[in-house]
Amino acid sequence: MAPHTSEIIVRYAETDQMGVAHHAAYLVWFEVARTDMLRQLGYSYRKLEEEGFAMPVVESGCRHLASARYDDHIVVEARIGEIRRTRVRIDYTARDEDGKTLAEGFTVHAFLNGEKRPQRLPPDMAAALRNEFPESSSS
Amino acid sequence: MAPHTSEIIVRYAETDQMGVAHHAAYLVWFEVARTDMLRQLGYSYRKLEEEGFAMPVVESGCRHLASARYDDHIVVEARIGEIRRTRVRIDYTARDEDGKTLAEGFTVHAFLNGEKRPQRLPPDMAAALRNEFPESSSS
Amino acid sequence: MAPHTSEIIVRYAETDQMGVAHHAAYLVWFEVARTDMLRQLGYSYRKLEEEGFAMPVVESGCRHLASARYDDHIVVEARIGEIRRTRVRIDYTARDEDGKTLAEGFTVHAFLNGEKRPQRLPPDMAAALRNEFPESSSS
Amino acid sequence: MAPHTSEIIVRYAETDQMGVAHHAAYLVWFEVARTDMLRQLGYSYRKLEEEGFAMPVVESGCRHLASARYDDHIVVEARIGEIRRTRVRIDYTARDEDGKTLAEGFTVHAFLNGEKRPQRLPPDMAAALRNEFPESSSS
Repeated sequence: MAPHTSEIIVRYAETDQMGVAHHAAYLVWFEVARTDMLRQLGYSYRKLEEEGFAMPVVESGCRHLASARYDDHIVVEARIGEIRRTRVRIDYTARDEDGKTLAEGFTVHAFLNGEKRPQRLPPDMAAALRNEFPESSSS
Repeated sequence: MAPHTSEIIVRYAETDQMGVAHHAAYLVWFEVARTDMLRQLGYSYRKLEEEGFAMPVVESGCRHLASARYDDHIVVEARIGEIRRTRVRIDYTARDEDGKTLAEGFTVHAFLNGEKRPQRLPPDMAAALRNEFPESSSS
Repeated sequence: MAPHTSEIIVRYAETDQMGVAHHAAYLVWFEVARTDMLRQLGYSYRKLEEEGFAMPVVESGCRHLASARYDDHIVVEARIGEIRRTRVRIDYTARDEDGKTLAEGFTVHAFLNGEKRPQRLPPDMAAALRNEFPESSSS
Repeated sequence: MAPHTSEIIVRYAETDQMGVAHHAAYLVWFEVARTDMLRQLGYSYRKLEEEGFAMPVVESGCRHLASARYDDHIVVEARIGEIRRTRVRIDYTARDEDGKTLAEGFTVHAFLNGEKRPQRLPPDMAAALRNEFPESSSS
């Protein structure tokens, strides 16, 4: 299994007057990496929504170890951390070009059906995620 | 007619590494001022959308005369600039606490019905806007 | 001690295509509430930065219990959760107009001097924060 | 001269409850395209700032012809529109994957030195820009 990574170039608009990328930008980058990872596994989040599903963020967290600057190339790795009946935790690591870790974070997502009620992950999707990330526990 | 104004306090996240509010923030502030102005005239944009209408931005422009800094109190005035059959132009002036003009801008909005097709502004709304802003020409 | 709260009106730009405020917006609202709370205690964060200090976010987390919609009035309470030598944890609760909790979160801040090195919180500031939030432990 | 283009994938956070990319996102995309175009011409904006220069936006405008949706691939072309003594206008066209124009816009930038005063563009930079975009008039 190769890691699923996305490349981000820090935008000027994402910096703040501290001269570094604002901490809220990392949640947006995690979202980009999540979209990319799911697409690579054959599950376009766009398509999931068009089919009536939704995966809203119900929890998130991030530890910042170093700063990112305008025009820096950031590599964000996304991986499935845990799969539960109606929830999925995705873990992220953002690194700079030299591999130094900038931030580590996670998001927990509910899986909702068209009536916005929690529902089990579609079995094929759960299987594909577990197959790719065998360390993600299940229940 | 009193001017319709909204007070904005510049957020840290809105600054960039130049140490001032990023220029894209002004479009967001104009949107806040637009929402407030329409609400003051009795037309909640939220309600308009719930009734199936939409007023997407089809054009915008902004001239920046001075910078705004984190924690600055900005006053944004919004006024109807021109009313046409299916379009409305709204003009904005952003000033600092001392009344110095920071930026002048405008947005042009299409008026769309539930099928996302251009439609005439509801007559009562057009009348209310013209009544409040007699200088806005009509066609 | 009265709670320190900030009122936020959800901006259109803060919504996403799920029709609710994007989860990253909460970090920005927490930042607004943090700025307000510190100002109420006599410590303008703007002034702290002008004096050469910085309080970058080194960790953050947020649990989302309910959604916020465009034009909703949100009340964000900020309180000092823990004071340590060179770090401060601030806790937040975002509620809707009826008092229903939408989100609970926290940010941990390093306290840096002009050379961007960790330093002890200024004693008067630490005392003021502890005085206002006696439950915040210390070390 | 090949056109200078940047590819953007619309982020979820950039959508709003209308289900399309928020109009302010275009200014951010233009900024990405501007950074890329200058870099392709040998002028890293990051480096320009490190050398003490700044090119703040003093005016901007955008016409929206069609909408962009989450996960859409957008191609933004940037080109020098006009070079004056201390100002540069950059023009942008955002197109979807099929070449359909979504938006046309521009930004005007002042060129400032380390004291934040207007200064002439460095002659080599002005020459390089004019060489690449011969249609940009000069004064």
